[in-house]
Amino acid sequence: MQLRVPGPTPCPNEVLQAMSRQMIGHRGKEFGELMRHITDGLKKAFQTKNDVLILTNAGTGGLEAAVVNMLSPGDKVLSVSCGVFAERFADIATQYGAEVDHIRFEWGEASDPDVVRQRLQNNTNYKAVLVTQNETSTGVTDDIASLAKVIKEHDKLMLVDAVSGLGAIDLPVDEWQCDVVVTGSQKAWMIPPGLSMISVSEKAWQAYKEAKMPRYYFDLGKAKTFLEKDQTPWTPAVSLFYGLEAALELMEAEGLANVFARHTKVATTIRSGLKSMGLSLFPKNESIASDSVTAVRVPEGVDVNKLRQVLREDYSLFIAGGQQKLGGKIFRIGHLGWVTEKDAEEILASVKGALPKVGFSPR
Amino acid sequence: MQLRVPGPTPCPNEVLQAMSRQMIGHRGKEFGELMRHITDGLKKAFQTKNDVLILTNAGTGGLEAAVVNMLSPGDKVLSVSCGVFAERFADIATQYGAEVDHIRFEWGEASDPDVVRQRLQNNTNYKAVLVTQNETSTGVTDDIASLAKVIKEHDKLMLVDAVSGLGAIDLPVDEWQCDVVVTGSQKAWMIPPGLSMISVSEKAWQAYKEAKMPRYYFDLGKAKTFLEKDQTPWTPAVSLFYGLEAALELMEAEGLANVFARHTKVATTIRSGLKSMGLSLFPKNESIASDSVTAVRVPEGVDVNKLRQVLREDYSLFIAGGQQKLGGKIFRIGHLGWVTEKDAEEILASVKGALPKVGFSPR
Repeated sequence: MQLRVPGPTPCPNEVLQAMSRQMIGHRGKEFGELMRHITDGLKKAFQTKNDVLILTNAGTGGLEAAVVNMLSPGDKVLSVSCGVFAERFADIATQYGAEVDHIRFEWGEASDPDVVRQRLQNNTNYKAVLVTQNETSTGVTDDIASLAKVIKEHDKLMLVDAVSGLGAIDLPVDEWQCDVVVTGSQKAWMIPPGLSMISVSEKAWQAYKEAKMPRYYFDLGKAKTFLEKDQTPWTPAVSLFYGLEAALELMEAEGLANVFARHTKVATTIRSGLKSMGLSLFPKNESIASDSVTAVRVPEGVDVNKLRQVLREDYSLFIAGGQQKLGGKIFRIGHLGWVTEKDAEEILASVKGALPKVGFSPR
Repeated sequence: MQLRVPGPTPCPNEVLQAMSRQMIGHRGKEFGELMRHITDGLKKAFQTKNDVLILTNAGTGGLEAAVVNMLSPGDKVLSVSCGVFAERFADIATQYGAEVDHIRFEWGEASDPDVVRQRLQNNTNYKAVLVTQNETSTGVTDDIASLAKVIKEHDKLMLVDAVSGLGAIDLPVDEWQCDVVVTGSQKAWMIPPGLSMISVSEKAWQAYKEAKMPRYYFDLGKAKTFLEKDQTPWTPAVSLFYGLEAALELMEAEGLANVFARHTKVATTIRSGLKSMGLSLFPKNESIASDSVTAVRVPEGVDVNKLRQVLREDYSLFIAGGQQKLGGKIFRIGHLGWVTEKDAEEILASVKGALPKVGFSPR
């Protein structure tokens, strides 16, 4: 089965092999070396000198950590949203008592930095702004560079959901002054789900000192204290650390710029192949289309569940449907992490083969 | 290296092999079958008809889930404690705004159900009682059957940290009416760290409805809703699910009663072997000594770090030291999960060989 959802993503053999290594003690020297090696590799991939912490939980837990370590109940927060995952990020903040204002862009559009600027000019009391690098639900990548510029003009704390983008799509954390950036292991990182990785700037650590939302497992200060001795406060998912070490070595060998270029190339191939079949992309225009996940409008009269079933059963290709109000309206192809041009061509051939069986004749 | 800390524990080959399987989609049919299979296996091991939920995080995250889903800020809670991990459980409750009263027994002693009864008779306004089945820090197993009887006499909610005991030491969840029981994958379950498993009784679900502590990632209600379609709300650590399925099959093939008997036998061998060398166990008397971890007093004049180093370097045996105020005073041997009589004999031979090198002559 070719697994092409936007996470979990397939794992290279090097990762699977590494994952089958026997356990070691998480308070011993060997784990310390592993931790140091991984942390160094992550800093390169995050393009940061900030602390990078590794938590044992899914990406949503990483987003929760970003919220509860930086904010206090009652804090005003601005959520910049164009899809499901940005809404989730905002929900977490609301759940912990932040007062969240929303700027909501239409699904399929990108967030407009000028609208954010206007809001920040008129409302000076926001403690933080929540943004999403790559909106997995709509296949749109936001312009984090421009959003960061606006947010930093107003000296606000910037929390970035980069779960499905970081490591696939360029996000130079230090250059763009992103304060907290969260990613998840099962996306661009080519390893199974279970870890989230999170960078924390100096400004964010200042916010941490004042932040009063309750937290225990997700306490980033504890994670930092233990990182100083190359450990984690709670027992880490050791086998995923093995896998991450192997994956980071692969990424380093390829070179980060090449990793990004490969994602762009694969995504371009997929988008142009789908368009040439007569399909329409969901993003309003291609310049905002994500290089890690492609969202495609379901053609009139086609049952997306049937399409996904035919792809699974006849073509061994597993893709995703739409979420929430996009259910039935789009399908999504994940092409991040361990993915090549050849995979892209196979995906296209499968889709082209399946479409006639569900009532659509590709060009 | 023979890893004999009280978690992570060594994994059988069947588990390591399973862990190296390729990823599957967590919203697909194949994952659903895996989830159902594991959940059924866990219910047998928990000896319960209650819901059993699987969370992707370390055991401490499971304890946090037990607290934040059952309690509201301001709730009065009674913590029954005889070591580090019971204190952690109570800390989590405090962190989220519960008013925690403590009954603290001396480290090395077990919790006395009569003292708990007295407290509950005099204070009727406790919402819940926190207990710890197996105090990993002192090598003491509490008498959960008797504690449960007392707590249920007073109709209190009973939250059990069974992280390092469940699956190794008998804890019939339904028979003893334990409301919430938390365990961790890297202990008796013979798989790597990264999952916590948690059972929730009908009474606990009633408490959940009223509980107002903030939560998102750890929301057990969401986990239950998704379990109904054989899924998890957030992306699960798929490879650990593979491992858990393999481990549960091994446990089922052995038979739960045999698993418990093996742990008792191994622990008895280890305890009597250590005593026959002239060493003293840390627990006040052997009847309360844990069958999953043995805590041993460091003999006068012996440097425990040196002992651990000799064991590591000369005997390839990795054991644990003491925590907090027990640092330097005890060492701890984990013997849970994948452990046999033969392992016990090897451990004893290694300790016997190492002791003279650190200034202690074993008998």
